Amino acid sequence: MQQQISVITLGIADLARSRRFYVEGFGWKPAFENEEIIFYQMNGLMLGTFDKKALEADMGRSGLLAPGAFALAHNVARREDVSPLLLRLASAGGTIVREADAPLHGGYRGYVADPDDHAWEIAWNPAWTIDENGSVTFGL
Amino acid sequence: MQQQISVITLGIADLARSRRFYVEGFGWKPAFENEEIIFYQMNGLMLGTFDKKALEADMGRSGLLAPGAFALAHNVARREDVSPLLLRLASAGGTIVREADAPLHGGYRGYVADPDDHAWEIAWNPAWTIDENGSVTFGL
Repeated sequence: MQQQISVITLGIADLARSRRFYVEGFGWKPAFENEEIIFYQMNGLMLGTFDKKALEADMGRSGLLAPGAFALAHNVARREDVSPLLLRLASAGGTIVREADAPLHGGYRGYVADPDDHAWEIAWNPAWTIDENGSVTFGL
Repeated sequence: MQQQISVITLGIADLARSRRFYVEGFGWKPAFENEEIIFYQMNGLMLGTFDKKALEADMGRSGLLAPGAFALAHNVARREDVSPLLLRLASAGGTIVREADAPLHGGYRGYVADPDDHAWEIAWNPAWTIDENGSVTFGL
């Protein structure tokens, strides 16, 4: 079976508010958008921000909660890139969850929640390579 | 800013129970594992299954909830691959959330929750291409 994730879909309450975080904060460009979903083309997978009620209807399950027991990470090339990005994401409607510091396992990272309380780790991890297409490879 | 997600980290309660779902259900191979985390090398990003209390400590935030307001998707090559994979994931400790059917926007999909109630959509989406490395590209 291919070790492959096609989409990460985040349930959101307000499309414009969420769009501002991803477009102004991260500086990402939508690949598609309509009145209930925005797709961003990522590194070999899609990120979708989808009206939460529509996501619940599609799943056939209601009562999805936040903050969910997960985190997404965006790794940056240099240690000094972490804090400015956290601040820019906070300016675009995010909330700093943890200020950047150095974890025991190495590197440097902080956490910011998007406007719907989905957590993003912004990390510098020198052991993991990121190529020019954004493809991330595990390393120790 | 690179349109790149480096890691999806899922908070889990029982590493062995979760491992069974991903290794026996999906058939994926860990790239790294210790007593609190397993990493899987995916299509240009990592999937981590991490002890939930350790994730909360790393984030500096407690009380992460499930089911969270998100879904992950694994797309398959053929419509007829969807239902057998849902069944195999259910046999490996998952719970079917929605039986496979055809949504209005096209394709074919169902949902299964992993043992920690994280939702996976198993989908056939003929508009999106998947290359031999698992890289997924948006299409209409």
